[in-house]
Amino acid sequence: MQGKVRKKRIRIVVPVSTDEWNAPARKLLEGYKDANTQIDIVNIKDGPKAIECCYDEVFAATFLVREAERAEQEGYHGVIDYCFDDPGLRAAKERLEIPIVGLCEASVHFATLLGTAFSIISAGPPDCAFTDIKDLLRLYGFADECASVRSVALPIRQLERGKQIQADRLLSEATKAIEEDGADTIVLGCGSMLVPTEEIQTLGAPVVVPGIAALKLCEDLIDMQLTQSKRAFCIPRRQSGEQA
Amino acid sequence: MQGKVRKKRIRIVVPVSTDEWNAPARKLLEGYKDANTQIDIVNIKDGPKAIECCYDEVFAATFLVREAERAEQEGYHGVIDYCFDDPGLRAAKERLEIPIVGLCEASVHFATLLGTAFSIISAGPPDCAFTDIKDLLRLYGFADECASVRSVALPIRQLERGKQIQADRLLSEATKAIEEDGADTIVLGCGSMLVPTEEIQTLGAPVVVPGIAALKLCEDLIDMQLTQSKRAFCIPRRQSGEQA
Amino acid sequence: MQGKVRKKRIRIVVPVSTDEWNAPARKLLEGYKDANTQIDIVNIKDGPKAIECCYDEVFAATFLVREAERAEQEGYHGVIDYCFDDPGLRAAKERLEIPIVGLCEASVHFATLLGTAFSIISAGPPDCAFTDIKDLLRLYGFADECASVRSVALPIRQLERGKQIQADRLLSEATKAIEEDGADTIVLGCGSMLVPTEEIQTLGAPVVVPGIAALKLCEDLIDMQLTQSKRAFCIPRRQSGEQA
Amino acid sequence: MQGKVRKKRIRIVVPVSTDEWNAPARKLLEGYKDANTQIDIVNIKDGPKAIECCYDEVFAATFLVREAERAEQEGYHGVIDYCFDDPGLRAAKERLEIPIVGLCEASVHFATLLGTAFSIISAGPPDCAFTDIKDLLRLYGFADECASVRSVALPIRQLERGKQIQADRLLSEATKAIEEDGADTIVLGCGSMLVPTEEIQTLGAPVVVPGIAALKLCEDLIDMQLTQSKRAFCIPRRQSGEQA
Amino acid sequence: MQGKVRKKRIRIVVPVSTDEWNAPARKLLEGYKDANTQIDIVNIKDGPKAIECCYDEVFAATFLVREAERAEQEGYHGVIDYCFDDPGLRAAKERLEIPIVGLCEASVHFATLLGTAFSIISAGPPDCAFTDIKDLLRLYGFADECASVRSVALPIRQLERGKQIQADRLLSEATKAIEEDGADTIVLGCGSMLVPTEEIQTLGAPVVVPGIAALKLCEDLIDMQLTQSKRAFCIPRRQSGEQA
Amino acid sequence: MQGKVRKKRIRIVVPVSTDEWNAPARKLLEGYKDANTQIDIVNIKDGPKAIECCYDEVFAATFLVREAERAEQEGYHGVIDYCFDDPGLRAAKERLEIPIVGLCEASVHFATLLGTAFSIISAGPPDCAFTDIKDLLRLYGFADECASVRSVALPIRQLERGKQIQADRLLSEATKAIEEDGADTIVLGCGSMLVPTEEIQTLGAPVVVPGIAALKLCEDLIDMQLTQSKRAFCIPRRQSGEQA
Repeated sequence: MQGKVRKKRIRIVVPVSTDEWNAPARKLLEGYKDANTQIDIVNIKDGPKAIECCYDEVFAATFLVREAERAEQEGYHGVIDYCFDDPGLRAAKERLEIPIVGLCEASVHFATLLGTAFSIISAGPPDCAFTDIKDLLRLYGFADECASVRSVALPIRQLERGKQIQADRLLSEATKAIEEDGADTIVLGCGSMLVPTEEIQTLGAPVVVPGIAALKLCEDLIDMQLTQSKRAFCIPRRQSGEQA
Repeated sequence: MQGKVRKKRIRIVVPVSTDEWNAPARKLLEGYKDANTQIDIVNIKDGPKAIECCYDEVFAATFLVREAERAEQEGYHGVIDYCFDDPGLRAAKERLEIPIVGLCEASVHFATLLGTAFSIISAGPPDCAFTDIKDLLRLYGFADECASVRSVALPIRQLERGKQIQADRLLSEATKAIEEDGADTIVLGCGSMLVPTEEIQTLGAPVVVPGIAALKLCEDLIDMQLTQSKRAFCIPRRQSGEQA
Repeated sequence: MQGKVRKKRIRIVVPVSTDEWNAPARKLLEGYKDANTQIDIVNIKDGPKAIECCYDEVFAATFLVREAERAEQEGYHGVIDYCFDDPGLRAAKERLEIPIVGLCEASVHFATLLGTAFSIISAGPPDCAFTDIKDLLRLYGFADECASVRSVALPIRQLERGKQIQADRLLSEATKAIEEDGADTIVLGCGSMLVPTEEIQTLGAPVVVPGIAALKLCEDLIDMQLTQSKRAFCIPRRQSGEQA
Repeated sequence: MQGKVRKKRIRIVVPVSTDEWNAPARKLLEGYKDANTQIDIVNIKDGPKAIECCYDEVFAATFLVREAERAEQEGYHGVIDYCFDDPGLRAAKERLEIPIVGLCEASVHFATLLGTAFSIISAGPPDCAFTDIKDLLRLYGFADECASVRSVALPIRQLERGKQIQADRLLSEATKAIEEDGADTIVLGCGSMLVPTEEIQTLGAPVVVPGIAALKLCEDLIDMQLTQSKRAFCIPRRQSGEQA
Repeated sequence: MQGKVRKKRIRIVVPVSTDEWNAPARKLLEGYKDANTQIDIVNIKDGPKAIECCYDEVFAATFLVREAERAEQEGYHGVIDYCFDDPGLRAAKERLEIPIVGLCEASVHFATLLGTAFSIISAGPPDCAFTDIKDLLRLYGFADECASVRSVALPIRQLERGKQIQADRLLSEATKAIEEDGADTIVLGCGSMLVPTEEIQTLGAPVVVPGIAALKLCEDLIDMQLTQSKRAFCIPRRQSGEQA
Repeated sequence: MQGKVRKKRIRIVVPVSTDEWNAPARKLLEGYKDANTQIDIVNIKDGPKAIECCYDEVFAATFLVREAERAEQEGYHGVIDYCFDDPGLRAAKERLEIPIVGLCEASVHFATLLGTAFSIISAGPPDCAFTDIKDLLRLYGFADECASVRSVALPIRQLERGKQIQADRLLSEATKAIEEDGADTIVLGCGSMLVPTEEIQTLGAPVVVPGIAALKLCEDLIDMQLTQSKRAFCIPRRQSGEQA
């Protein structure tokens, strides 16, 4: 077995102002990364502690972009925008000449490769409309393949404490997604849903874990020496910080 | 002639860190507002001086949202997000309980009311991909009705100085949009395109000026006592400034 | 507060051969019109007394077009086609050089400005398929944003007598639209549904009243000095009455 | 060879107030009808002499519906709405319990059975926008398969006199449709385009003649004992002539 | 009654390696064919005995193509690919210069001519995902008009023995399709569903029988002297059997 | 750097009856595979030597499915269907419980991750309609993102001999795709286009090489322990070879 050994230094930006997800996310990703991939996890200094709607997303976006720029300057080969709302992703794609991948976009690409209709099971407050997520599906062209967006109805910051509730509701919502909404593939709709997915293997449907999906696509792009099209995501004329 | 006289105080947020567009924008809008509408124009303190791509948009978005929140606190009845990229609009729609209208969304609603296929003539650097604008069309569901996005190929901040070039190119691009792309309606794709539109009346196609379009829809919503659906744009749990 | 005072004389054509809706419609619209708008309401001489399907619509269409032509000849600045089926609207848009707005088109533009998924609650016989309305949504490009079309299941001409039944069913159907169909915005699907909308404010979703929606957009177009694109809705070569 | 011999009496309504197309249309259709089909051609008494836009269409529609109703009362088994604008078709589908087929709908069904992208070559004034035809394509769900709508740029009533011009332009426009627009199938977009289609066999693409297409589908429906779904096209409550 | 008598020799290829459906299919089709149509039914030698998924379809496809080629060589005027999965249809359309029609494509063309939303009631194992059928709907551009795909949950080869179960379930599923899924038209989704359709006339919705639908469209194309566009379905360079 | 070392044995089936592409394909893929991936390349025994249309595809499909089944039986962890027509892919997805990836599907997923509009530059005879490829785009839901399908107009089997012609035309067609069709990303549309892609780096647009794209996604799925959804691609009841 040969194969060019490409070293892949990937910066994972968790765009919330808390590091509580770093350790579990690292643990998860370490189990799936390539042998020659090295990951680093950073948070943003300011901004929301959790991202549950467009409003939160906007405040995370600028910080994400700055962290992504910094990663490029520091010589990283790729960046992961570790939030299912993909905050600031299109902006960072413009600025960066190294690949950056978001959790939502990566997940729905795998979901539509694996099946014909996916449901997203996300977290957040119980009455959430998920307009933030549905906006992304429209933007990326996957609205027609989405059977439903459902929720475990737990605020993101209670996911860790409420692990068993999360797992139970996840199984229950995913079952409804399959039986009532016609989904054949399940996507976890939040980077903080770190429930052991073995529990949901009984569904008989593939379950896409967004952090892993983004990690693999980011590694792929580095291996393939490809980055987002600079004809679609043109380099901004204005420099960061500059007010042009 | 009776008719309930509803006083309409509207805050216009020009989400760039320069006030150079305020006077001409005010002059334009004063000519189209209702008799009982009062408009105020503010800029953002920090952030880009012009918005030409997703990257610029992200940095304007947070400031726009904060200015929109302030307008609501100060008792305004409506807000206009005065930029064709609609920066932070979805976020502000979540936070606000008074109506807020963006330039792009308002323009494409009028364009599709008036015709069956519109072209947007925008400004910005010559090689611009307009991914920011095309993203919005996908998001709002108007991509199919868009015949093309074309450009006068002038950086936004040169629009005022290059007024005649702008007018000439506008006429030339709009003519190509009609003859080559099949457009029957023209949308000016930048809040700073303040060229006297009489010059383009010769096109035989309606020309939608985005600032006027947004003003009229904002007035309408206030008159109709309607605001963006709080079931689609749910109130964020997190307070502004708070890091929840 | 300055602002050009544009006088707006608007002819409202209620395309049914009864004047029973004129007084309540006038009462409704007077409460929402601009101070310098003057409205006139006329009916058609012949044709159906209510429009509940494509069949009714066809017989109203010719009369609507003739009344619209007459309004233009009499110097009106705009016309409203006061029926949710928009009978003859595309034909009138071709003939007229003043703006004409239909109830359905105006309503769905506001609905999609306010939310991301609307339901229409209409009237008519209980087993109605609403092919007339669904045809318009396809025609105008809003089928994807429509969560459902539901009915209060009252024949239009019984709406006035059955006001309380109408209000009860409206609330019940709108609730189902929101909870079962995923609507975040409600559109009343008939110009004769003149129920006090306060009763449905409890829904927590905006309710678009079609007559008001059309009035505001018609006023806007007059203020903006815009009319339907004559490149999309070309002037017919044949004169009215002429059999060319 | 057995096969149930089903007698098929088909009324062809040419919804213009001239009988100049009856003889050539009859000649064409006699060459394609089943052995046990009997066709009758009638015109409308009033209304336009040619249908070139939505405005013309509206005035033909009521008369078409009445003629279609009369055909059903007289015991015909099927009706053809012999105009590419399908005037009044949806209304007649509601009223009738025998099948009625329009020229446009029949043509696009055959075009999409035969190829993957069709162009319509129609007639009418040179600057025609064909909003009437494009509306039908949206309504019937075939807009995506339409490569272009092009024109021989002859007013309909000059088609007969200008037969050679028509044939030349048809060949020229169809060639452009194939080479420039990507069409693989051609539809003649007017019931009065009765040019010998041999001239365009050189295209190497099938050419759908709308009158023949409608005749064959109408015969099929009679043979299959199927009529338009009364669940989609519900019987109107109002009787013809009645003003309910 | 004149009308050119066109003799139509049609080869019906039932692409399964059993002749058990030939007699009942012949009986059905003889009742609907034109007086001057002659039909022949053949099976494939090898391959599956029933086609219930993409996997079965692939093994039937090559044999179907060879039989279709043979029919053309033997002077037939048209071919019917008698299976609702349309196995090998696109390939055969490339090779043949006589028309070939598939059961699924023919059925959905009639269904969308007759109504606005159809449901397919098919057969096969109870847990079937019908990805084979849904793929075809996407391919032919009819996915949006499909209200649902439902199943009588009988393996195809038990349809004949289980005729009463089939009829009962068909009625039950079609009723659910209409009442729960919004269908106004029903398509039988298998060439072997030869249940007397009188039993489902009570539905008040047209029922399209795929074999009859394909027969009529094949006869039409022969009568119209049209074949699939050789610009869409180009003649393959490689000869059958040849390994170019 | 840790990371679970997952051994990945991948069988690459080149579904043509010649091994002339095996060596160059291996050379290409060895340069991009993971360190712990082992690839094997096999051809099919019978069937076409090149796949240029639906007709060729059908004859390759059965052999592909059988080779894929054999790979699973032999303990491989994944399979690549090494042809841009993805012959037999949906069938193999049903049969297999290990992941199988096709060249077209893999390429368009990467293309839409990298940009907003892609063009495919394929090979084959000069007058090719590429209905085979366009069918797949419709099937996979990527038709709207495809700016164009263009061709180097070389028969596949001449690609190797005509390497320079291929490279020149590729550059020329890709340039037209970008400048005339609006593409921002290029996909090579044939597994045999093994031109050194450095020559097209001057385009300023990412170029997706299908074999590499499929290899990386196949490795990802194995690493993620995911396979195609058995709810979308249900296990066929019939065994291979069996004629059930």
